[in-house]
Amino acid sequence: MLEFTHIGDLSSDEVDRIRDVYQPLAESVRDLVDATIRTEVDADEVAAVKAEIDALTAQLRARQIDGAFGVRYTTAGDRMAWGNPVVGIRNPIAPPLVIERDASGAAFTDFVMGAPYEGPPGFVHGGMSALVLDHVLGEAASDGVIPRFTGTITLRYLRTTQLGRLHAQAHVDRTEGVKTYVVGHLADKDGITVEAEGVFITPKWARDQN
Amino acid sequence: MLEFTHIGDLSSDEVDRIRDVYQPLAESVRDLVDATIRTEVDADEVAAVKAEIDALTAQLRARQIDGAFGVRYTTAGDRMAWGNPVVGIRNPIAPPLVIERDASGAAFTDFVMGAPYEGPPGFVHGGMSALVLDHVLGEAASDGVIPRFTGTITLRYLRTTQLGRLHAQAHVDRTEGVKTYVVGHLADKDGITVEAEGVFITPKWARDQN
Repeated sequence: MLEFTHIGDLSSDEVDRIRDVYQPLAESVRDLVDATIRTEVDADEVAAVKAEIDALTAQLRARQIDGAFGVRYTTAGDRMAWGNPVVGIRNPIAPPLVIERDASGAAFTDFVMGAPYEGPPGFVHGGMSALVLDHVLGEAASDGVIPRFTGTITLRYLRTTQLGRLHAQAHVDRTEGVKTYVVGHLADKDGITVEAEGVFITPKWARDQN
Repeated sequence: MLEFTHIGDLSSDEVDRIRDVYQPLAESVRDLVDATIRTEVDADEVAAVKAEIDALTAQLRARQIDGAFGVRYTTAGDRMAWGNPVVGIRNPIAPPLVIERDASGAAFTDFVMGAPYEGPPGFVHGGMSALVLDHVLGEAASDGVIPRFTGTITLRYLRTTQLGRLHAQAHVDRTEGVKTYVVGHLADKDGITVEAEGVFITPKWARDQN
């Protein structure tokens, strides 16, 4: 039995085991999302597929957590934002991004955005670029111990971003008291498309720990 | 047979008929996305559901458009952004928002965000607020004839946004040449949470039509 409500009690091995159960499900639903947008099969078949999906959803809901997923921690203290719409491995909305860090602490990520993220025909929705950059700048602002939350963020769109393979990165420019200034950008295969700068705030409860 | 590749040739009645086919499918997948994040059923059952989803996806992909959905127009000239990740009725990632306009031309929308949009536990991901505001400001900037694209957008986070019923609105502050200045905000049940201002640009191809 998988007790997600008590996942904070699980060891890293157990977390790995649970990841292996749920991650493939989210990957399959992610693929279904894409097919739902692009399918041209006819009305009867769509109705039949819809009915089967409703039955599967009911099956999954037979036992589920109340409300949203939240953020869980393992006994080792690892942060499990599995429901997150940017990085969450259990969230079919998330591409999902895998955030990496270089030696200087800068955050970067390489990922793919297809049909579900389209705004202008063939291009990434401008707000999706904002979603990604907000998240990547936030990761760069946080040192892995103390979370920091977006105060303000400004996005400058140099040109439209082509759907396909994308890259985002961000690094801390400077820190002044509770404010951390972060800059970053999004790039498609032809270069930088959106520049971002943000001010991130250390939450009150974490300030004494600094 | 439904020919989405030729949907520009369809009358409003035919578009309504096609909407009635595909919109319920996207609604069901949207519900499945939520269940995928929240389910606690055990490993065997998850694996069985996953296998069935893969089969349904293959069924939908038996006939599908190449690439992303794009934006289609009806014979009546109505814009059908059905694949859009904010307003697309065929995109399970979209809540979807329904944008309304008041007499002054301001854009507003009331919608709900649950588990798939969560960042901090119980709250909307800050980047999701950015996604919504980018879109709503863009709608306010466009007069329904000439589209305008985001040049820059600045978001100021006053506090975290609670998951649940939300409201967003935006209006044109002023227009100077090709630049349209728009302001707006996002609110949860307790009031305004994020303020936004953006500069939207009339694309070159549309400037002569002004």
